[in-house]
This record gives sequence, structure tokens and C-alpha cells, in this order.
Amino acid sequence: MAAKKTETESKKKTIKHAPGADLESRLADLGQDVWHTIEGGDSPLIEIPVRGLSNVSWDKKTNTLKLGEKLLKRNFLNTAHSRKFMQTMLVAAYCYKHLLKPNLHGSQRDLYYALKRTLANSDENTFDDQRESDPCIVDLEVTLETLRERLHVSAAPKGRVVGPATIEDRGDTIRWDKMGSGGWAIPSNVEDIRFKDVSADYLLAVEKDAAFERLNEDKFWEKQNCILLTAGGQFSRGARRIIQRISREHKLPVYVLTDADGYGWYIYSVIKFGSMALAHASTQIATPEAQFIGVTLTDVEKHGLQKYTIKAEAEDLKRTKEIMQYPWFQRAEWQKELKKALETQRKAEIEALSSKGLQYITKTYLPQKIADKDFLP
Amino acid sequence: MAAKKTETESKKKTIKHAPGADLESRLADLGQDVWHTIEGGDSPLIEIPVRGLSNVSWDKKTNTLKLGEKLLKRNFLNTAHSRKFMQTMLVAAYCYKHLLKPNLHGSQRDLYYALKRTLANSDENTFDDQRESDPCIVDLEVTLETLRERLHVSAAPKGRVVGPATIEDRGDTIRWDKMGSGGWAIPSNVEDIRFKDVSADYLLAVEKDAAFERLNEDKFWEKQNCILLTAGGQFSRGARRIIQRISREHKLPVYVLTDADGYGWYIYSVIKFGSMALAHASTQIATPEAQFIGVTLTDVEKHGLQKYTIKAEAEDLKRTKEIMQYPWFQRAEWQKELKKALETQRKAEIEALSSKGLQYITKTYLPQKIADKDFLP
Repeated sequence: MAAKKTETESKKKTIKHAPGADLESRLADLGQDVWHTIEGGDSPLIEIPVRGLSNVSWDKKTNTLKLGEKLLKRNFLNTAHSRKFMQTMLVAAYCYKHLLKPNLHGSQRDLYYALKRTLANSDENTFDDQRESDPCIVDLEVTLETLRERLHVSAAPKGRVVGPATIEDRGDTIRWDKMGSGGWAIPSNVEDIRFKDVSADYLLAVEKDAAFERLNEDKFWEKQNCILLTAGGQFSRGARRIIQRISREHKLPVYVLTDADGYGWYIYSVIKFGSMALAHASTQIATPEAQFIGVTLTDVEKHGLQKYTIKAEAEDLKRTKEIMQYPWFQRAEWQKELKKALETQRKAEIEALSSKGLQYITKTYLPQKIADKDFLP
Repeated sequence: MAAKKTETESKKKTIKHAPGADLESRLADLGQDVWHTIEGGDSPLIEIPVRGLSNVSWDKKTNTLKLGEKLLKRNFLNTAHSRKFMQTMLVAAYCYKHLLKPNLHGSQRDLYYALKRTLANSDENTFDDQRESDPCIVDLEVTLETLRERLHVSAAPKGRVVGPATIEDRGDTIRWDKMGSGGWAIPSNVEDIRFKDVSADYLLAVEKDAAFERLNEDKFWEKQNCILLTAGGQFSRGARRIIQRISREHKLPVYVLTDADGYGWYIYSVIKFGSMALAHASTQIATPEAQFIGVTLTDVEKHGLQKYTIKAEAEDLKRTKEIMQYPWFQRAEWQKELKKALETQRKAEIEALSSKGLQYITKTYLPQKIADKDFLP
């Protein structure tokens, strides 16, 4: 989202909290600052990093998307800012008082309903719509350099995981290798889970539920000693955060398996480099060490799957061209893959491998790719 | 889907397998019948119950939707049927030989890719598109009076569950009360799980992930001794089947919690009465004993949540009027609720309860409703 023109942009970072301080203190500081400014007779002000394309870039060093230095100032006594200022303060106070203090978690929608009311002696509502409260949560997330999960505001949970690992969570010891045909359902917030024992050799993140179930039925994770995870489509924040934690805390290689199409490549891009919308959170949610295991269009040729590919539509080709331009997709291996997609005008699904037999993916395709270290960067 | 005009409808049921026979034998019988007919010099024929509105009705006795007696005949030597006949046979053979015999499970898409090929000496593909193979799976499901899960063709898995129950699945013993902040991820196929110990007093199925996480964080299921389940939106086949199994095998009351709107009522309708598209499977997937716990528009008034309701749009009102007409929604309590929706032109979300405090749902709203047995039928 581009910064509203009514809010002044600046480049000087003046966030006052110590980045190491705990979140409760930082929220308290935010409130104290505003309070002291008012007492001093001035108009209180919050400075919020600008989100949106104009302030997002790819950081070559960390190999993730990141936010730039641009700040916007939200000034209480500027009539164009007052309402948003009030809303930001309400959200901050709620996180402090009703979520962090009592150690409860809520969704963005809970927070909207909890804060919606008509201000005394007026017709003015604190919030008319959830579209007014949601951005305040992101503003706080960015300003406090944290994840909204740490502010105890949950995103929708999605995803399941199995494999040789044991975690502790809310007093329960949970073995991911004892989940039968299901899996451990990944919650929205994985900040508080503790990895007790991770004996896996790598983590395999798969785009599709069906591929997850195939690999789970074949006990692929047992044979290959890996953690197997899916979010069934685009990966939720919780799933991406758990991948990052496993990568960082246990130094496990991460391989991503998706369809050979724009949607699949984008899923990979988001897991590895972060997303534009969450560029401020990349350091906490992206896994730059992730590698792409497939399916690639080279695999399609190698395994004779040409007849099982699908015609790329105009929309697919457009998407492919866009991805080709991303600065973080400039590696020769990716350019070759994307060029092949444009030249052949074909895309391929993971399930194309089923034309060789249901267990081809488990017994041949993946073990070969892993043995050959045949990954895209 | 309405039956194609090219396929003849009949009312005489001539399915030859014994309904009690196991599925492998019934598939084998289907093949044998076709084979014997060909050997006898006749054109082979399969009779498939007609799906679609014209053959769906509400069965007052079982209180579920069911398919009528209409059959369509698919005749190999009728040129308008041959292609579909061939496709149905391919799918049946695949289920028999590649899924049931080796005890493997696949998705509809796996099956499509596995069966797609060009017929020898022709330009004819077995299937041009997955839209050709998917209906064959349903045709078989209906004809064999089974669930496609028992043919080992999986639907997309969705949903999570926690609570005082222990299951056995693929050799693992899984305690649903030891899942931390996550849950047990419900697989696509729950036919083979075995309930080892179910000490819960009832099952609460909630529409929304956020409500599930709130109730899970508050250990509602421990305090109330219940199983807590969500599918995050419309309930998957696996989630509906597991609810039915718990209701039938353990005689647990089932309560459904959704938003007070057309989408929520429809979720309840599908869990309880079955759906039109799966009317043939109601006896195996619907839970006619389920009751609606809320949120109702009467609750909204009782708990003073009027300010937290949302204006119903034209689409909502249309949906409400449709549901009012359903023969299975004619109970006075429902007519009163739906009338209130039309009169007030408002709808309400579960999260409206958060305006009374995050834990209001856990500590006040639900315990009260359950103590008062305040349900809609």
C-alpha cells in the first residue's frame, strides 16, 4: 500500500525503543512517548516505516526482500491524521492490555470487534470497518520491528507437518512421527513452540495436500529421514515461520516442491525471499537458504512427461515474464527455467509424475533429485 | 448435474452386486458383467443412478437428503455413450488394480494423469481434461453405493481436531488431548482410523479457525470435556465423515457453531442433512442428529450485540429466502430465525462476541447455551 499523501514522509529513523527490549516495554514506551509529548504541550507523533513498492527492495546480502528507510509521520493535531492516529493508539493499547498482559491471542477480526464503538457524545465510531483496523496492526508490526504473532494477533492457521521431530507446546510433548495418516495441524502462532528433538536431515515443503498425502502414505519422511510439510497452496505465515525456525535453529536444508508454473514459483519466492506485502518481516519469516527441488520443465523432459503438461495461458506467460524480471530471480539457472516456460508455452503439475505410477514421486523422482543435489537456487 | 439427454433414464434398479459384498468384489462383478455381456454378443451396459436436482429429495425418515430411483443407462454400442463408457471402465479398473489391490490412495488428479493417454492407432485421448475423469469417479461412487474414499480416491484434506479422544491410525496411537496449540490435522480419508478411547461428552464443530484457536487456547475442550473440531469454512468430506463416525459410533451429541448468515447456515445444513451434490452419500457422511448451537440472531439480542452486526446485502437476503424454502428447514424454530434475518436485514459473525471480551465465548456464551440446551434443530 502506498503511503497516503496526507502523511509526511521522512528518511530519518527516530524509533526510540531499544530493538532488544521486550515487546511489552516497547509498547509501553510508545504510549509514554505520546503521553510526554502531550504533557509538553506538543502534538504527539508516531513515525511508521512506509510499506509498499516504493520502499521495498531486494537485499543482496541477506537474499531477502526488505523495507527501506522511508518513514511516514502520523501527527495527532493534523486533522488528516487524527483519526488514524487515534486508531493506531487504540490497537497498540489493546495489544498491550488485552493480549500481551493477560497472555491471550486474538485474530484481526476479534480485535476489530473488541475496539469498535461509538465515541462518547459523538456519531463517530472508533472503526467503521475491519479495513480500518487491519492496517493499524501492520503499522505496529512494522514500527515495532516485530511479527504480529508476537503482538498476539494471529493470522489464519493453515498447514500440516509430519516427520522425525518432537516439539513441546503448551505443556504437551508432540511427536511429529506419530501422526498416522494426518499430521500435526500448524497453529497460527508458532513463536512459543519449543523444538525438543529434531533428528531429520532436511525439510521438504510441498505445495499440494495431495502430494503430501502420497509422500506420507509411502512414509517418505521415514525412509528419507526428513520433515514433510504442506500448507495446501500459498504458505501461511505460521508455516513460513516454522520453516524458518527449523532452518535457523536446526540448520536443516529446506527444499520446496511445487508445480512448474507461476503460482508454484511464487510460493517458492515467498518462502525463500519473503513477500512484498511482508517485506518488513522477511528477517523473521523468510528462509533464504531454501532451494527449489522441482517440478522443473527440465524434469519434464528428463522423465518424458511432455504429454502430461498443460498449455500455458496468456495470464501464465505474463506471470512468468514478471518473475523473470525480479532481481532475486536473476540466477542463470532460473532464467533458463523461465525461458523454457516461455518457449514451450507449457506448464506442469506435480501430479504429472503419477502418469509413471503413483509411487514414482516417492521411489524415483525425489530420491534421485536429492541424491544428485539437483536443485534450483 | 442433470443426466445427459443422450443417456436413457430408467427407474428399475438392476445393480447386481450384493450390497454387503466388499468393494473389490463389487468392482470385479462390474467388470465380469461387462465381459460376459460382450461374450454373449450384446452391447455392455452400466446403469448409474441419476444425480442432480431432479433425483434428489429430502428423506423425512432419515432426515437427510437422498437420491431417488432414477437410473441412466450407459451403453457401449451407442455412439453417444461409448466414450463415457470407456472412461468409466478405465476409472473402475484403475481403482481396482492400482488403488484397492496394492492398498494405495490417490487424488482425482493423480487418477486423471495416470489414465490419460492416446489410444493406439488413433488421435483419441482416453481423457482430454480432468473434467472428464472426475464425474466418472462420482458415477462409480453412486453406482457402487460407496464413498470414493473407500475406492481410495481422496478428496482434499482440511480441518483440525482436539479433545479427549485417542485414535489409532497406521499403527500410531494419537491423543487428541496432547496437541498443544495446534491439533490433529484431519486427513482426506478417515475410513481406517480406529477410535480407541472417546471420553468426551459431546462434539463441537466450529466454522472458523479463529474461534477454534480461541477455544483451544482457553482449553474449552478440557473444561467442557468435548471434542473440538474445525474445517475453517465449508467442511471437507473427511471432517464430515469423522463427525458422523463420532456421532454414530460413540453416540456423542454434535453441536455446530457458525456465523449467523447464509454461509454459516449452509455449513450446518451440509453437516446435518448432507448436500445436493453428495445426496448419494448422505447416509455415510451426514449427521442428522447435529444441532445448531449458534450464533443466532436471538443470541445477538440476548447478549446485546446489535451494534456488532453487519448489514445483509441483497445476496444474503436471497440466500436466506432460499434456505427458508428448503423442506428440511421448515421447523418453526428455524423459520423464526430466518424470518428475523429478513426483518432485521442484519447478519452476525462469531467474533461479534469478542466485543464482550475475548473469552466471553468460552466463559459465558457457550457454557450458557449448553447448560440451557439452547439449540436450533
